[in-house]
This record gives sequence, structure tokens and C-alpha cells, in this order.
Amino acid sequence: MTAQASFDPQAFRAALGTFTTGVTIITTRAEDGSPIGITANSFNSVSLNPPLVLWSLAKNARSLSAFSGNPHWNVHVLSAEQESMSGRFASQGGDKFAGVALDEGISDAPLLQDCTARFQCRTAFSYEGGDHVIFVGEVRAYDRTDLPPLVYQGGQYALAARKPRSEVRLAAPPPPECSYTEDLLGYLLGRAHYQTLYALRGMLGGDALDETSFFLLSVLCIRDNLTLDEINAFVGYTGIEATQLAMKALEDRCFVACEMASEGARYVLTAHGREASLRQIALAKALEEDIADKLGAGDAMALKLLLKRLVASTDPGLPDLWAPR
Amino acid sequence: MTAQASFDPQAFRAALGTFTTGVTIITTRAEDGSPIGITANSFNSVSLNPPLVLWSLAKNARSLSAFSGNPHWNVHVLSAEQESMSGRFASQGGDKFAGVALDEGISDAPLLQDCTARFQCRTAFSYEGGDHVIFVGEVRAYDRTDLPPLVYQGGQYALAARKPRSEVRLAAPPPPECSYTEDLLGYLLGRAHYQTLYALRGMLGGDALDETSFFLLSVLCIRDNLTLDEINAFVGYTGIEATQLAMKALEDRCFVACEMASEGARYVLTAHGREASLRQIALAKALEEDIADKLGAGDAMALKLLLKRLVASTDPGLPDLWAPR
Repeated sequence: MTAQASFDPQAFRAALGTFTTGVTIITTRAEDGSPIGITANSFNSVSLNPPLVLWSLAKNARSLSAFSGNPHWNVHVLSAEQESMSGRFASQGGDKFAGVALDEGISDAPLLQDCTARFQCRTAFSYEGGDHVIFVGEVRAYDRTDLPPLVYQGGQYALAARKPRSEVRLAAPPPPECSYTEDLLGYLLGRAHYQTLYALRGMLGGDALDETSFFLLSVLCIRDNLTLDEINAFVGYTGIEATQLAMKALEDRCFVACEMASEGARYVLTAHGREASLRQIALAKALEEDIADKLGAGDAMALKLLLKRLVASTDPGLPDLWAPR
Repeated sequence: MTAQASFDPQAFRAALGTFTTGVTIITTRAEDGSPIGITANSFNSVSLNPPLVLWSLAKNARSLSAFSGNPHWNVHVLSAEQESMSGRFASQGGDKFAGVALDEGISDAPLLQDCTARFQCRTAFSYEGGDHVIFVGEVRAYDRTDLPPLVYQGGQYALAARKPRSEVRLAAPPPPECSYTEDLLGYLLGRAHYQTLYALRGMLGGDALDETSFFLLSVLCIRDNLTLDEINAFVGYTGIEATQLAMKALEDRCFVACEMASEGARYVLTAHGREASLRQIALAKALEEDIADKLGAGDAMALKLLLKRLVASTDPGLPDLWAPR
């Protein structure tokens, strides 16, 4: 090797971190029989025939002797739900395997459960790799599930938003002079919102409420015994207004009762109103499952994560509907 | 190596494909001086000190002799915008470098532009890896941009939706008996839609329109000279209705003019209406840039991709607003 460049380790690591990876836990058993496991994202496939994979381990890792001494190790491609497992096996000390259920594998190496994929390997080669050792393993058995995989990019966990093989287009390409296109985030949010609401209305059939009633009932299902002002503090940003007339529509359907208190009218959900609202929620959940089936479970998780981040970053300071009182 | 397991190559490949990767193009120059480049996702980092990276190349690849003969090669971590480059360099034949602008590197290996990161390497080791050769390279120079990286998972391109280090929560955890939670997709879509609309209204100030006027004006900005029935075919799914009264509100502000034709009234946008709509679109784009800054450019792209996929999968058969006529 020629004289090495001297890089700022943090900047070099950050540049390397732009290469997206999955997250794996790699396990083996030490000579004394104790289970060993570490989180690694240096995994990759090498060869199909023979079936080989590789990963690299720091020469100063405490687990090096175990992996050098035992040819049997298992690679677990973690699912999106296993972020905490990743953190646990990335940290030093503590009994990482405490309370972790194991499956029976073809070797003595611990085999973790609920992963996206597992590869049971036997060291074929171990190679010099600077401050790391590169382990190349022959895959002797593998299995996989449909669980969406955990992703790692730029030092953060992530989920994948997959691109279909052909471009997703909703409409004909707009003429060049048209600056309002389907690529406008606001258009996509509005259309996604109204289309799902439209689908929900279709599922509710004759029980469907108009949008105002639907929103007011939803608020009261989470928190009731509210005055008009209190309701409006929750829904005002939507442009929908809780008026006496709007509440009257819900009272007429026996969903809501108005109770007079010293500070004025307060609205409470009736048992019938709660039932109607719960039915709406159940159908909304069924619709969501249907959408997750179409997009893929991981993509649906990614969508919800991104919507939450958007909502958090554009929150005008709404009161917390779910806050205990 | 012990006797190898015989796996169904397709199933084994699919299991390996659950491990998410970035996408790279790796380049070198053949002995005759011609540029060589291939798409690879078998890249990974190995060592910080010395700085080493690796990737593997099929032994039957036509580029093997070039990479074996020339120690200099460059790894380009592709950006989300470089999907077509990935496809071009993954295919056989044709002049992959035709029309591709190159930067000057420290070796003769071609250095591509507009990537997320680039590593200029020199072979340190090449190792046996079954049907592949593993190239380990010393990184002699590198650079990076802020362009969001392209992701590959399960045989599909993807974008990363990154998770902040601490969980994103919008509200207090709901009591266990409350089945309406912030995790409901419908809630998130509605809140995201109305919050962005609320922010847009704030930017428009006194020029803000009510929701009905806003939607009707937007439709007419994309396509005008429409009857009420035609407008309603486009907006009906939102629950908003184009009535004569609703159009009158736009006429009163001189945004829309009503023209009588043989088949009834048709509505056209006035110059003033077009100006107002274009101003809304410009502000909506500014708002979108602000959101993209907060989420990250790649995450914002991922959100739009997923919203488009959701809209496509829940489309009740809306007519195409942008269709040429």
C-alpha cells in the first residue's frame, strides 16, 4: 500500500455514511459458550455460487477473538421494528442477550427472531483490511420474512420509500407554461387527504357525515365536554368552524348532547355518537391497511413517519387534543 | 470451504436483496485508454485508518481485466437524481460515457459529476470471493455534496425517509381506551393538508381566499373555459361544490368571468385571476422549499413519491385536469 492520505476521520466517516446500508446483527458463540453479538452495517453479498457474504470487524473489537475462533456466525438483517435491538447490540457491556428469544440454528451461533432475513454462515476466508478484518462467510442456510428492513443513512436510521419500476404519474405532463403541476407538495397533500376521505365516505355509505360534522365528531371522540371556543381552538386551523348550527346537526342525529354549565354550553358525545365515531375509526383503519397493502408495509410506515415530521415542522402551535387533564 | 449448500439462485438473491444499499458507479480506464464504468451496490467501507473501501466484481464481468490491470478506480455514490445513470452503467454495450461530463481526478480513472460522494481509490488488495473478486482500495481522495443519495432495496430503487434520533410525537400518548390516535394515516393526512393550507393562508395574508374559492381558482388556473358540471367532475371528490354562488364570489373579485355559450355558462380565468393564482402557486412553492429544508431534500422527495403512490392507488377515477384537449 502506498503512503496513506490523512483524512479528518469525522469528515471521511460522514462521506462514507452517504452510502446507504441496511443494519445487521452478527452473532457467534465464544469459546466459553457465551453468546456474542454486534451491530454491523458493513455487510454485503459477494458471490452467488458458491454463496458468500462478507462483513468487517474492527481489529480492536472485544468480539474479535470470538469471531476469529469460531467459524460459525449468523447475519441478521434487521427489520424496521428492530431499531432498539440495533442500539442494544451496538453498545458495549451489559448482557445483550438478556430476554432475547433465540431460534435453533444449524450451528451454535445464536439465531435471533423476527428479522427481515437471516444468513447462517461459516467463515470461508478472513482477510486483512487495515484497522478491520474482513470476514467472508459461506452461507449454509438462510431464511427471510416479509418484514420491511431497517435502513441506515448518514448516521440516522431510516425507512425506504420505494420507487416503482415505472415513473408514477397521476396525469398527463402539463404544458410548459402551466406552473401548477402534480409535483406541487400542496397538491399532493390535498389530493391524498380528500381521496382517502372520499374512500372513507364510500365505506360509510348512508352513514357518511359531511366534512364539518365528521371533524367535530372526531374531536369530541378524543376529548369531549368542550365549549364551542374550546372546540374551535382544536379545529380552527382547518377552516372548519364549530358553530351552534354545526353542533345542532350533530345533536339532531343524537351524536352529541349539549349541557348547560355556568360558563355556557358544553358539548358531550352521546353513546350513539361514540359508536358512530368508533365505526368511522375502524373503517379508517381498514382503509389504512388496504393502502399499506398497496404501497407495502415499509413504504406505508415511511409515509406516516414523513407526514408526522411535516406536521411537527409546520405546527402553528395547536393545543394537544390528547393532553391529559 | 466445506461443501456448499445449493440454493435456488433467485430466492437467495431475493433474501440478499433485503439488505438495503446505496448505488455506486465504479470507473477505471482500460489499458487502451477507454473509460470503463459499472454499476455496483456491493460497495462498503472497511477501515478508517488506513482509509479503505471494498466492492466486488463478477469474475465473468467484461470489465474484470480493466480493473485487474489498472490499480486506479473511482467509486461514485449516486444521488437520487442519478437513477438513469445507474441504469446506463448497469447495462451492457453502448458507449456508457457518451455525453457524460467528467471532472479531473488524481488518476486517469473517469470521475463523474453531480454525485453524492466520490472516492478516488487505488487497489490495496484483491481477494478471492467465489464467483467474484473482492477489490479493497485505499481511498486517496474523496469529496461529497449535499445531494440526497439513491437507495436500492429488494431490487427497486428507493429514497430514504430518515428517522430523527428521538421519536416524533405530535401529542401526549393517548389513554389506552382512545382508539383515535395520531398514528392514524387519515389523521396525519388531514392534519398535514390543513396545516400547510393554514401556513399558505398566513403567507397570503389579506389576499387569502376561503377554501372553496381557493380550490375553484386552482382548477381554473390549470384548465379554464369550463361549465359548472365540468368543474365539479374535477373537484367533487373533495366535497367542495362549484355552484353559481361560489363562482359569483370569484367573479366579484374579478378573478373569473362567466361567458354564455350555447350549452350554458362557461367560466374563464381573468388576467387578474391568473395573477392571483400564480401568486398562490409561487407561495406554495416557497412553503414547499421551507418544508424541504426542514425535512431534508431527500426526505421531501420521498414524501412526494409516497403521496403520489397513495394518490395513484386510491384514485376513484378522477378525470385528468392536465389532459390536453
